Amino acid sequence: MDIVLFFLFLAATFGAAATGALFPTGEWYKTLKKPSWVPPNWVFPVVWTSIYLLIAFAGARVAGMEGSAYAMAFWAVQIAFNALWTPVFFGLRNLRASLPVMACLWLAVLGAMITHFGLDFWAGLAFVPYLVWVTVAAALNYSVYKLNPDQKPLDLPNI
Amino acid sequence: MDIVLFFLFLAATFGAAATGALFPTGEWYKTLKKPSWVPPNWVFPVVWTSIYLLIAFAGARVAGMEGSAYAMAFWAVQIAFNALWTPVFFGLRNLRASLPVMACLWLAVLGAMITHFGLDFWAGLAFVPYLVWVTVAAALNYSVYKLNPDQKPLDLPNI
Repeated sequence: MDIVLFFLFLAATFGAAATGALFPTGEWYKTLKKPSWVPPNWVFPVVWTSIYLLIAFAGARVAGMEGSAYAMAFWAVQIAFNALWTPVFFGLRNLRASLPVMACLWLAVLGAMITHFGLDFWAGLAFVPYLVWVTVAAALNYSVYKLNPDQKPLDLPNI
Repeated sequence: MDIVLFFLFLAATFGAAATGALFPTGEWYKTLKKPSWVPPNWVFPVVWTSIYLLIAFAGARVAGMEGSAYAMAFWAVQIAFNALWTPVFFGLRNLRASLPVMACLWLAVLGAMITHFGLDFWAGLAFVPYLVWVTVAAALNYSVYKLNPDQKPLDLPNI
């Protein structure tokens, strides 16, 4: 595996990860009603860091392989929707608009997992925790949306 | 060129483009002091739509080519930082934190342009307007930051 490629894909995940630092969960998230099975807060950064390392590994492993076109396209789609979700949920606080973003992310991760498995067993396997986690996150997003029907998206002030 | 690949890369740009719709420029942007050479508002969506179509074309054209690993990695990096910039500037209204995001985006687009040129003339050419535009956007971001020293980032309310 080309280590420069690994760090390039890791740089892409850094763009997505930065949303987590820039749009912190904070007090507002605490006030939301959450399902009984909500993971504790410390789990999120640990899981995301692991996922980002794994998919950077997966991307670097299959990039340049013959027949890797679809895998690379899905890799790009997933990172774009991954970067989009946090600003919509934690920035706009739009519990509803974040649902279709999550649906697109879920499909992109599924596509990435399948196409990476088609090229290389370990690269495909590296996407499995991501798909599991995005499934949990989608269920959490939907559950929080349903449990907080009065929650309005943030109105950005005009000036 | 594989048309399904084109639409997959276009889907990735859609994730980035959605930030433009979700974090609209609105009244706040109007109140900012801007340099004399600021492009009129209608230019932005027209240019961005063109750029997204061009880079989806470029990605679909080189994906799967022998030696496309770095081109694909740079394609992924640029779309992640592209999706990140708008929420930082128009969501957090952080004129300063958006500058390093723009710098990363600029480098990623430069890398993508060079690596696409290395594989295919037309794919490389498709990245040229993007690099030009990101240079303009970076200059505009920096200029607006300097012209509005009292502009504070948005404080998200606690509840």
